[in-house]
Amino acid sequence: MRLLVVGGIAAGMSAATRARRLDPSAEIIVCEKGPQAAYGACGLPYLAEGRVRHATQLVAYHASQLRSDRRIDVRENTEVVEVRHPQRKVRLASGGEIPYDKLILATGSQPAGTLANATPVDARVCSLRDWTAAQRLRAHLDAAPAGRALVVGGSYLGLEGADLLRARGWYVELAHSGSHFLRRPDGWLTTRVDKHLERCGVVVRHNTAVNLLPDSFDLILTATGIRPNVALAASAGVRAGTSGAIAVTDRMGTNVDGIYAAGDCAETHHLVTGRPAWLPLGTTANKMGRVAGAAAAGARERFHGVVGTAIVRVCGLAVAVTGLASELARREGFQPVEANIEAPDRPRYFGGRPCAVQLVADRGSGRLIGGVVLGEYGVEGRINTIATALTRRMAVDEFAQLDLAYAPPFTTAWDPVLIAAQQLLKAL
Amino acid sequence: MRLLVVGGIAAGMSAATRARRLDPSAEIIVCEKGPQAAYGACGLPYLAEGRVRHATQLVAYHASQLRSDRRIDVRENTEVVEVRHPQRKVRLASGGEIPYDKLILATGSQPAGTLANATPVDARVCSLRDWTAAQRLRAHLDAAPAGRALVVGGSYLGLEGADLLRARGWYVELAHSGSHFLRRPDGWLTTRVDKHLERCGVVVRHNTAVNLLPDSFDLILTATGIRPNVALAASAGVRAGTSGAIAVTDRMGTNVDGIYAAGDCAETHHLVTGRPAWLPLGTTANKMGRVAGAAAAGARERFHGVVGTAIVRVCGLAVAVTGLASELARREGFQPVEANIEAPDRPRYFGGRPCAVQLVADRGSGRLIGGVVLGEYGVEGRINTIATALTRRMAVDEFAQLDLAYAPPFTTAWDPVLIAAQQLLKAL
Repeated sequence: MRLLVVGGIAAGMSAATRARRLDPSAEIIVCEKGPQAAYGACGLPYLAEGRVRHATQLVAYHASQLRSDRRIDVRENTEVVEVRHPQRKVRLASGGEIPYDKLILATGSQPAGTLANATPVDARVCSLRDWTAAQRLRAHLDAAPAGRALVVGGSYLGLEGADLLRARGWYVELAHSGSHFLRRPDGWLTTRVDKHLERCGVVVRHNTAVNLLPDSFDLILTATGIRPNVALAASAGVRAGTSGAIAVTDRMGTNVDGIYAAGDCAETHHLVTGRPAWLPLGTTANKMGRVAGAAAAGARERFHGVVGTAIVRVCGLAVAVTGLASELARREGFQPVEANIEAPDRPRYFGGRPCAVQLVADRGSGRLIGGVVLGEYGVEGRINTIATALTRRMAVDEFAQLDLAYAPPFTTAWDPVLIAAQQLLKAL
Repeated sequence: MRLLVVGGIAAGMSAATRARRLDPSAEIIVCEKGPQAAYGACGLPYLAEGRVRHATQLVAYHASQLRSDRRIDVRENTEVVEVRHPQRKVRLASGGEIPYDKLILATGSQPAGTLANATPVDARVCSLRDWTAAQRLRAHLDAAPAGRALVVGGSYLGLEGADLLRARGWYVELAHSGSHFLRRPDGWLTTRVDKHLERCGVVVRHNTAVNLLPDSFDLILTATGIRPNVALAASAGVRAGTSGAIAVTDRMGTNVDGIYAAGDCAETHHLVTGRPAWLPLGTTANKMGRVAGAAAAGARERFHGVVGTAIVRVCGLAVAVTGLASELARREGFQPVEANIEAPDRPRYFGGRPCAVQLVADRGSGRLIGGVVLGEYGVEGRINTIATALTRRMAVDEFAQLDLAYAPPFTTAWDPVLIAAQQLLKAL
């Protein structure tokens, strides 16, 4: 059995590794169009910042190791441009062909913004979109004195970009066409991040599309959002879902027998709405990739889905979300009720700092359906607690009594998420 | 309606406050036998350490405030010695009586060890058991030069005692009669804590009962465990359960109509075993107290129960537990299977340090039934994620795909708890 994986980052490498483990005899080839496979893309902002000294620190396994230790034939700088599924082979940009028995598409995403096209013509335009781009940004920052930077984009990479540029001493403005951060339609969250960024010296402009390159900046960091890379899938007759990403089963199968899809190019099942959603994130890509690899190897694993959890740190503030914002919940047919609280994350004698929590519930069912946590300490643990509750459709009254760990070095006797839940119970 | 609450710390004050909120017209009296009500007892080790400068910092509300702001009549230094329920009144140590309509017993716990009796006769013997004892220890440490200390006890207070004495520069030996820390029959956990304490200069002696006071120490800190304070309950005909603590309903009612119990003196419902258990902790006491207060005020709230979550920090290491250790699980009729892993808590470029995770599942049902997390960062969040999963009886395969927050400042792409779950799946 020859398995061909297109894409060698999170989903692709997880798929190849899992398939190898379950099928020691399969021939496994991974085609990565870029110069480097198997790197941790979420570390790119920290490479640009300089915290990661050398790009190779982000590489989990080198292609040579994967070939020798795991017999995975990783081919870098190898772009697949067409799938000829009736003949069970792909055509490469180089003109060559590779035959396969089973195919996993892990083609990821691509920039959706118009500024992306400006890169070749204006040396000031940088991005964090991939291995090459992040290294170019790092070189730029290492060579130039700190100046004036414009970050275009208000989602994760935009905030991480603002963070790293401030850390390197740049003046930073952040502009984006949307009205909310992280594409979460929630004024409470956006106002809090706005205030924090203002305190950190970042000028924020919402509802500001940047179509022309302004002259008044020394650096323009584009992070204008992404769309799923589905061109190759289309060439194979693989269908996209309503989100525009590839529609997959819970075993990562597509509508075409023998072709699987995983990672940013594919849809996921949203456990809160019960419907498909496109939530491209590295951890999800890893999980989907594992299941796709297992399926290609003939094993029966399934991917349960996601609840929409994510976290970003910007200038010392951790911003974490999960589930649905009220506005989205309403569109999905829920009757959202929310509680927003602020409470110390630890006792004062342990340096307690403000922690803000939003919880969203559905009035009809009493079920918790979303949450946001902002703060400096313990934010990831608090959002994970909410995410775990969402996964199992926990009711607010059960959540409000969760037996969470307490000792003064870690939290307060009533953790902020429990205080928020008590508040929410009153509103339900 | 006159509500009398016996005990004015965690459960008692939560009960009184909740009852006041739900019944603005009730007369509410709280009798606290000690000199101070409404203080955070979990902060006492940090008072002794000196991190909490003044004991009053641990007081949430002073009796005068509670009287004026909430019309709760808090009477300190007021010990109730007998309940005469047929006459609906209690007798005080001072000889007086207080009549009531409804009674909440929040009498807490008392030291179970034999050394407790040594306090009056040997000035070297200290404890952290209450407001007075912790202040005496603090005064002792402030007055004496750092010397040789023996901590007697291997549970939370024993470890916190060792921690604070090391922080104050003392030589510390820790001896206890049990063979495992935190009364959790788990060699993996105990070995790890042993090694950590050894590195921190604490000499540990398991299986070492201390019945006589050794001469070779300048300070003996007793933390030999507690038992529920049920003498007053017995005087009222209130029955204890199999654990020895007061048996209560999910509304905190006892076998005697009009008498409720909450906090360390009462049993709780264990959500993993489905049976009563005695797990005396401050957070649980707060939650039980709220429900008891609501019940006394005529509201229909219920306490769902606990999963046995707890955390302690000792010399920089956070040690957290939830659910059942394998040995306990076996006794409860489960077929425990466990996985023990160690993985970095964050990427190396964010200062990642080792995090050890143990997960326990039941082979028959595939359900997660216990967990332990040890580390320096994010431990409370990880144990809370496990605790939330236990609360909703999550299966290991669902847990292994939890949509947890990921960004490099907070964790690795596969969080240690997910790595442990993958490991456990292989063993199931």
